[in-house]
Amino acid sequence: MRFLLFAAAGALLAQNSTPPVKSPEVHADGRVTFRIRAPNAASVALVTDWMGRGESKPLAKGDGGVWSLTLGPLEPSTYIYGYVVDGVTMADPVNPRVKLRAFGSGSFVEVPDKGAIWQERDVPHGKVEINWGKSAVLGGETRWVWIYTPPGYAASGKRYPVLYLLHGSNDTAAGWTMAGQANFIFDNLLAEKKMAPMVVVMPFGHAVPFGQREAFGKDNNALFEDYLLRDVVPMVRSEYRVETGRERTAIAGLSMGGGQALRIGFGHMDLFSAVGAFSAAAPQDFEKAFGDSLKDANTKLKVIWFGCGREDSLFARSEQLDSLLTARGVKHTFRASSGAHNFTIWRKHLAEFAPLLFR
Amino acid sequence: MRFLLFAAAGALLAQNSTPPVKSPEVHADGRVTFRIRAPNAASVALVTDWMGRGESKPLAKGDGGVWSLTLGPLEPSTYIYGYVVDGVTMADPVNPRVKLRAFGSGSFVEVPDKGAIWQERDVPHGKVEINWGKSAVLGGETRWVWIYTPPGYAASGKRYPVLYLLHGSNDTAAGWTMAGQANFIFDNLLAEKKMAPMVVVMPFGHAVPFGQREAFGKDNNALFEDYLLRDVVPMVRSEYRVETGRERTAIAGLSMGGGQALRIGFGHMDLFSAVGAFSAAAPQDFEKAFGDSLKDANTKLKVIWFGCGREDSLFARSEQLDSLLTARGVKHTFRASSGAHNFTIWRKHLAEFAPLLFR
Repeated sequence: MRFLLFAAAGALLAQNSTPPVKSPEVHADGRVTFRIRAPNAASVALVTDWMGRGESKPLAKGDGGVWSLTLGPLEPSTYIYGYVVDGVTMADPVNPRVKLRAFGSGSFVEVPDKGAIWQERDVPHGKVEINWGKSAVLGGETRWVWIYTPPGYAASGKRYPVLYLLHGSNDTAAGWTMAGQANFIFDNLLAEKKMAPMVVVMPFGHAVPFGQREAFGKDNNALFEDYLLRDVVPMVRSEYRVETGRERTAIAGLSMGGGQALRIGFGHMDLFSAVGAFSAAAPQDFEKAFGDSLKDANTKLKVIWFGCGREDSLFARSEQLDSLLTARGVKHTFRASSGAHNFTIWRKHLAEFAPLLFR
Repeated sequence: MRFLLFAAAGALLAQNSTPPVKSPEVHADGRVTFRIRAPNAASVALVTDWMGRGESKPLAKGDGGVWSLTLGPLEPSTYIYGYVVDGVTMADPVNPRVKLRAFGSGSFVEVPDKGAIWQERDVPHGKVEINWGKSAVLGGETRWVWIYTPPGYAASGKRYPVLYLLHGSNDTAAGWTMAGQANFIFDNLLAEKKMAPMVVVMPFGHAVPFGQREAFGKDNNALFEDYLLRDVVPMVRSEYRVETGRERTAIAGLSMGGGQALRIGFGHMDLFSAVGAFSAAAPQDFEKAFGDSLKDANTKLKVIWFGCGREDSLFARSEQLDSLLTARGVKHTFRASSGAHNFTIWRKHLAEFAPLLFR
C-alpha cells in the first residue's frame, strides 16, 4: 500500500514519512482548525481572503512540530487562505483544494450549509463546457472560454438568452465555476423557477497577460473589450443556440470583471440591456467616459445592479457610482452589503442578480 | 495600481511587499531556474515528479533571501515540482499553475516544444464538457465527469465510438485535460487524420474517498467499476451521441487508472474491445482473477496496449503482465520506454495508443 501510494502520488507526497496532518478541519459548528507541520519554523501565521491587507493570525506550535489555529464559527461559504511560514507565504501543503489563479496559489476551505444557494443539490444540473478558440484580436493566440448551458439545453432545440460573466483579477475563466460554484447557483435558481434559463459565457479576462501593462497598444480593459465583442460574442452566436437581441443579452462581473462589465455594458447599450457588477473595480473615469450616454440608460438598460461589501477597499468606488447615477436620475440598484472582497459576497450577489434578467 | 492589484488579488498577494521572484523561469534552451524567497530558511530543496522517492536537490541562497537552482536542459514536457523549506513540502508560492490533486498540492512547469503532439496547435479544437450527475452506486452522491467531444461533434448529428480514459491516484477527473493536455493530443491527431473521431469520457476514479479503505463494503477499484458500468456508461449513452457496441468502446488509464482499465477491460470483454494501460498499477492477482478469460482475449480484444517507463517503480508489474500474456499466447503490445512516473510518458503513450482504436 505504501508503495502503491508512492508510485501513484509521486515524489512530493513521499517526502513526508510521518502521516500528513488534517487541514483544514471543518467542525460541525462551523469552526475551522488550520494545521501545518513545520517543526523548524520560528513563526507560522494564517492569511485569508476576509482579512485586510497585511493582516494575519498566528498559529500556535504543538506536539510533533504541528502548528494549529481554530477560528470561527465562520459563516458558511468558501474561503481562500494560506500560511506565512517564516516569511514565506504558501498554500496549505496538504489541502488538495487549490484555487487556479492568475498569480500565486491559495487553498480553499468550505464551511458547508446545505441550505445555501451555491451548494450542490439534488436538482437537474447544467453543464459547463470548456471551449478553446483562436482569437484574431489577440494575434491568433488560443484562449479558453467556460460556458454554462442549463439543464435540458442539448435536447431542447431552443435558443436561450446570454449572460457574459466576468471574473476577477487574480483568477481565470475557471473561477466562477471552480471557486464560485456559479453553475450550482444557476441549477438551484432554475429548479426553484426563480430565474430564466440562459447560457452563461465565462471568458478569460486577462487579454493582456497578468502583470504586463499593455499589449497591441492597449491596456487590459480596452483589449479585453475588443476580444469579447469581436471574438467571443461571434463565437458564442455561431456555436451555441443563443438569442442575439440586446434585450436578450446581459453582462456582469466581479472585481476587475465588474469594472469591465460596467465599461462594456454602459459603452454598448446597443448590445446589452442589463449590467451587473459585484465588488467592482468601477471605472474612476466613469462620468467622463460614459456621462453623455447616461441619458439613454433608463430606456436602454433594463437592469443596472451593483453591490459591494462595506469592508471592501473598493466600496467607495461603488458608492461614487451610486451617487452619480442617482444625481443623473438613472434607475439602478446598489446593494451595500456586509462583507469583504471574496466569493462569499459574490455568490450572494450573483444569486440576487441572475433572477432579474430576461423577465 | 498597487491598490487595485491588492483589492483584486486579495490578502495573500499583499503579504509580499517586495516584488515576487520569477519562478519557474524556463530558458530558451530548456534549462529551468527555480526560485523562492525564503530569507529565514536554513535549507531549501527541490522535489519533482522525475526524481525517485526521498530524492531532492538543494537550492542555493542568494541576494535578498532568494534561493535558486537551475536544472536541465529538460526534455520538453510538463513537470510537477515543489519545494521543501525547512522540512515543509509545498507548491511554488508564486506559480499560479497548480495541479488539482486528490492529496496535497504541486506546481507545474512547462518546457515547450512547438512540435510536440500535446502542444496546442492552430487546428480545430474539440471541447471538454464538465457533466455533474448523481450516482446511484455512490449512494446519491454527485460526481463530475469530464467529456471530450471532437471538433464538429455538435453539428454532425453522427454517433461516435467512446474511449473511457481514467486518471491516476493523486488526481481528479480534470487531470487528463488540465495536466495531460489530452484534448490537444486528440485535436492534433485528428487534424493529422491519425485517429478516429471519438468521444472520450474521463470520470473521477476515487469512488472510495482518497485515503479511506473502502465504502459500501468495497475497495476503490471494485466500487469504481460498479460506478463506471452502472452510472457513467448509461449516462454517456443517454446524453451523448455514442455508439454502444463493444467494437466501438475502449478503456484506458494511467497508474491507478491503468490498473482499473486492465481489470474492467479484461473483466468485461462483452463491453470493451480495446484496453490501454500507461504506467499501470497492474493487478497483482491478474492471473488468478482473469486467467480463465484469457482464452477469449485474442478474439474479443482487438487492442491490448500497455507501456511503462523503465525508471518507474511500477515497471516490474507491466513486465509481469507482458510475460503472462506472452506465455498464454495473447497478442498485445508492451512498450518499455525510458522515463519515470509522470505526464511526460503518459502523453506519449496516449498519443501512441489512441490511433490504434476503432480502425
